[in-house]
Amino acid sequence: MEGLTSFAPYLSIGGLIIAFLIYLYVGKQPDGNDRMREIAKLIQDGAMVYLKRQNTILIIFIIVVAIALGIFIGVHTAYAYIGGAVCSMLAGMFGMKAATKTNVRTTEAARRFKPNAGKALSIAFLGGSVMGLSVASLGLLGVGVLFIIYGEPSTAAVINGFAMGASTIALFARVGGGIYTKTADVGSDLVGKVEAGIPEDDPRNPGVIADNVGDNVGDVAGLGADIFESYAGSIIASIAIGATAIAGSKVAELGSTTALMSLPILLAMVGLIASLIGIGAMRFLENFNPAAALRNSTFIAAILFLVGGYFIIANMDVDNGVYWAVLVGCLSGIAIGLITEHYTAGKPVIRIAESSETGAATNIITGLAVGLESCALPIIAICISIYVANHFAGIYGIGIAAVGMLATTGIIMSVDAYGPIADNAGGISEMSALGEDVRKITDSLDALGNTTAAIGKGFAIGSAALTALAMFSAYTLTISSSMGTTFEIILTDPNVVIGLLIGGTLPFFIGALTMTSVGKAAFKMVNEIRRQFREIPGLLEGKEGVKPDVEKCIDISTKAALTEMIIPGIVAIASPVIIGFVLGPYALGGMLAGATVTGVLLALFMANAGGAWDNAKKHVEQGNFGGKGSDVHKATVVGDTVGDPFKDTSGPSMNILIKLMSVVSLVIAPLLV
Amino acid sequence: MEGLTSFAPYLSIGGLIIAFLIYLYVGKQPDGNDRMREIAKLIQDGAMVYLKRQNTILIIFIIVVAIALGIFIGVHTAYAYIGGAVCSMLAGMFGMKAATKTNVRTTEAARRFKPNAGKALSIAFLGGSVMGLSVASLGLLGVGVLFIIYGEPSTAAVINGFAMGASTIALFARVGGGIYTKTADVGSDLVGKVEAGIPEDDPRNPGVIADNVGDNVGDVAGLGADIFESYAGSIIASIAIGATAIAGSKVAELGSTTALMSLPILLAMVGLIASLIGIGAMRFLENFNPAAALRNSTFIAAILFLVGGYFIIANMDVDNGVYWAVLVGCLSGIAIGLITEHYTAGKPVIRIAESSETGAATNIITGLAVGLESCALPIIAICISIYVANHFAGIYGIGIAAVGMLATTGIIMSVDAYGPIADNAGGISEMSALGEDVRKITDSLDALGNTTAAIGKGFAIGSAALTALAMFSAYTLTISSSMGTTFEIILTDPNVVIGLLIGGTLPFFIGALTMTSVGKAAFKMVNEIRRQFREIPGLLEGKEGVKPDVEKCIDISTKAALTEMIIPGIVAIASPVIIGFVLGPYALGGMLAGATVTGVLLALFMANAGGAWDNAKKHVEQGNFGGKGSDVHKATVVGDTVGDPFKDTSGPSMNILIKLMSVVSLVIAPLLV
Repeated sequence: MEGLTSFAPYLSIGGLIIAFLIYLYVGKQPDGNDRMREIAKLIQDGAMVYLKRQNTILIIFIIVVAIALGIFIGVHTAYAYIGGAVCSMLAGMFGMKAATKTNVRTTEAARRFKPNAGKALSIAFLGGSVMGLSVASLGLLGVGVLFIIYGEPSTAAVINGFAMGASTIALFARVGGGIYTKTADVGSDLVGKVEAGIPEDDPRNPGVIADNVGDNVGDVAGLGADIFESYAGSIIASIAIGATAIAGSKVAELGSTTALMSLPILLAMVGLIASLIGIGAMRFLENFNPAAALRNSTFIAAILFLVGGYFIIANMDVDNGVYWAVLVGCLSGIAIGLITEHYTAGKPVIRIAESSETGAATNIITGLAVGLESCALPIIAICISIYVANHFAGIYGIGIAAVGMLATTGIIMSVDAYGPIADNAGGISEMSALGEDVRKITDSLDALGNTTAAIGKGFAIGSAALTALAMFSAYTLTISSSMGTTFEIILTDPNVVIGLLIGGTLPFFIGALTMTSVGKAAFKMVNEIRRQFREIPGLLEGKEGVKPDVEKCIDISTKAALTEMIIPGIVAIASPVIIGFVLGPYALGGMLAGATVTGVLLALFMANAGGAWDNAKKHVEQGNFGGKGSDVHKATVVGDTVGDPFKDTSGPSMNILIKLMSVVSLVIAPLLV
Repeated sequence: MEGLTSFAPYLSIGGLIIAFLIYLYVGKQPDGNDRMREIAKLIQDGAMVYLKRQNTILIIFIIVVAIALGIFIGVHTAYAYIGGAVCSMLAGMFGMKAATKTNVRTTEAARRFKPNAGKALSIAFLGGSVMGLSVASLGLLGVGVLFIIYGEPSTAAVINGFAMGASTIALFARVGGGIYTKTADVGSDLVGKVEAGIPEDDPRNPGVIADNVGDNVGDVAGLGADIFESYAGSIIASIAIGATAIAGSKVAELGSTTALMSLPILLAMVGLIASLIGIGAMRFLENFNPAAALRNSTFIAAILFLVGGYFIIANMDVDNGVYWAVLVGCLSGIAIGLITEHYTAGKPVIRIAESSETGAATNIITGLAVGLESCALPIIAICISIYVANHFAGIYGIGIAAVGMLATTGIIMSVDAYGPIADNAGGISEMSALGEDVRKITDSLDALGNTTAAIGKGFAIGSAALTALAMFSAYTLTISSSMGTTFEIILTDPNVVIGLLIGGTLPFFIGALTMTSVGKAAFKMVNEIRRQFREIPGLLEGKEGVKPDVEKCIDISTKAALTEMIIPGIVAIASPVIIGFVLGPYALGGMLAGATVTGVLLALFMANAGGAWDNAKKHVEQGNFGGKGSDVHKATVVGDTVGDPFKDTSGPSMNILIKLMSVVSLVIAPLLV
């Protein structure tokens, strides 16, 4: 069974070919009228220009870090690092290319087949699946190839470089994308919706194209890089832990080194196959109601994965108890998703809407309270995973639980990427004035996308926590084996406490930086949009032929994202290096633990508060508590605006921050002894 | 030198006598006209009624816990627990009694001696010093008496019960007081300032008396119980660590057991004497400018304490390195205070005010960013304290650093309690229509009070962090000595990780509970005030003789505080017990560490964001960015309202939460082995 890992690259190339075929198929769908094409082209160009400029900066950064790695760690690790970075960038490129082609075609499908939403759903989902399959396939390809070359316990540390490369791209893509999208979103909303009183996505608003570009840049490319990193990171952490299964160690009781190192890759292969089947099943599911279709395709893939995973483990030299880790990881991912759905679409949303009756202040207070409260249950789910995984399979089990949560990344990410495509489709229909009934279909697809996005964030956070913990364990095992004795980080050691406190503070600090960036950039965006409304005659009145200068707004978002992503990125990469070399490996261990705790909590708090504020506003817009235009509605718009950088910039940065710091620590571990 | 500890009770009784004399002196000052006396009586009655009802509930709770302690731990610990609770309650009673007498006399002094603010400052400060001296003296009295009875290493664990009693009262007083004051404050502001457009403290507003009662209940009694707990807790944790100085242990290298156990009490005695001198010095300082007077009296006490402490340590069987811990603790307390002052009164405040030009949403975003950012420097100050204290005096040094930070509690708390007295004095002058020039004096004293309050919060948070860490160390040492081997909490143990995550979540959860309580109760308050404006004819118009029904509002605040304080209190006390017995002492250790990290961070985040929002509003009200009544001002009012429960309810609860959980763990430690 272990030998099957050598097929991983072929399977991944198969996945990429299928993604490409889907891309061609989507491209052949009709793309609407001239106006629609024009808007779609603006969005596509904006997104691609941004991605190219971002990647140009990142390539320089990657080269610098790779040289440092080559000098201090080893040339092979530097290559793996570059490999991880390139695969992550490619996944982002492929996914965005597909997403920006699919958005307008989804709108067109909604227009042609109205009132039937099935075809539009199916196209949006297929467009998203290009991203899903690219992420899973490129991740498996990279790890698989490296495993064939370096898959021996003595050389496996090289593979860690891949995770570090993926993390580096992820952090910049998430932070940059997050700043881009929220600068545009907050800026356009503040002037358009609040001051000028024109609807969202109104073509008169100079910021709306940038806003739609932002959906792709942040929610497609950014989230993709995030999940890519967790996916690759969880596999690599498990390999690293498996590699320490030397005779006599606790890990060795679970099976042979080869088996333990191969298992994560085999599980990922099963997960990819299961995802492909799940995506295929949409052909039959598209006629059901959209929510059920998306959910069932995910469930089909999850069940197939769990069955296949059981079969794999039963036929390997691995303790059967490891299966419990797979199971609990997969189930707790789903559980966190459902809890997230409750907090961002259930009763707490009504509570926020109701509290808005006494104004914006109580809307904010209640939203913050909901966000704080929403941390408890997901943490309990994560704790249960840790407990069960550890009980049956020790530290190795925690890594495998993360793999279990993310093995079906192919479909999870497809469903996730569907969200911003549907959002864009709605924007295009509004800007092209396709009328109420088309907008109604795209709105229903978009509302569904909000829920899938929330669930996707739940997966991203849960898997980040488990991956970071697995990385953390791999870090201590690596130092142990370098030292030749057991490396134990003792919590009462004052150095560890210092590390814990500093680590705990870093997510707060990165949160402050990213919130400030959005605040500053949105301020510029607001002033630019106000200027255009003031200085371009006839724009606000909607005079025929008068067009806003959308390029200026795209430029503000692009510049803000590219400049403001640098400092958080450097802080995240440099802090483990500085703490590790100045205060030593014990303090660094404390720092990773502290950062993981507050990072996960802030991620949950921010994501869920933001999601709940957004939906509270939507709830009022549906005619509750006074409906659109009422004072209650205005109060909910304030909450929604505050929630924007929370849920789409600062919150998601946390996941990557904790993973990036863990993987950097893992890579530099041998130097710290 | 060690024998001097037996004088601690006499010194404390001396402190109490001086406090009583000050109380009599303040009471003899003129208390103004009939209207002023009437308002002052309403405030005093409201505060006393609340405190009595709160204490009635608490006495039942205390008896139940004491019985449990008597059965499971020992009768002596139960007595000590009751002693800690009673001393804390008495300190609160004395302080509030004085504060509610002083407020109106401060107003009257402002009226008589205008435009000279010196006399009013002096009276307000003297009123506050009753609280300061009561806290320090009763704390030292209780610990001193217990030390005489149980001051042997074998019985010293009994003294821990005193800290637990103090913590229990502190949590309920802080949470209850915080909910009381913010329910009244948020409710009156939302209807009065925002809807009806009448000024703060306007006598027509039915909620203003409750608001002024709240200042006493929350900021005097609540903060007093908080500081009382830190003060007693830091001394007791140091005694507990000193008691483990058995031959061969690391702690024993620092000196004899007797000396190490006596030192914290001796330092507290020096601190109390230094505080008395500092308070006395105000007689000469009152003619300087008020800010300088308050600051200099604190500095005089700090310098005297540092000199006296040096003399004590030099003449004891204690390693001189311990003095570094005293010094670093004292200095970092001041440093955290100054950092807090920067974030709540410096440039960040202007940033928030400026961002309010684009509305409430950007005001909130910037305020949250400032709050998140403000955590970094205080944490670094705490880390430096830990590093230096540990370098020179090991774990014992961390406890002593906390003692050093809080030894001059007498004066720190006096300056703190001055704030709400000045605030009340302003309220009384507004409600009694004493005119612009009186209000100007009370306003200037009040503005100063905001800064001193912020600094006081900095001390409370910094000392809570160090005290919790010292308690945590005492916990592990206690378990070690019960087990007979070294008890080491290893950070990669999955049970510890689970504890860490659950502990990290608790402050978020308590934050959610308290924010929700304020939100719900403020909603009721708003409806009641709206009802009175609607149903009482002539009230809003200010018709002669028409009075609001202030009792109803006081009742809403009282009921909300008393019912909503129960669940957070039980969660805080029960969670270490549950985790300790279900998951064991390792997981409990992880939980304490996790709770300390996120508790301190959330406390800083909430306190500083809240303070900054408050002062951003004040900055606009001073005529910047459009001044009072402008849209910018309205945006800052939203931020201020959100900040209210942040800085005065949820944030301060965090300090006590982490201390209470630590002390409960310390007390139950022997049962967990």
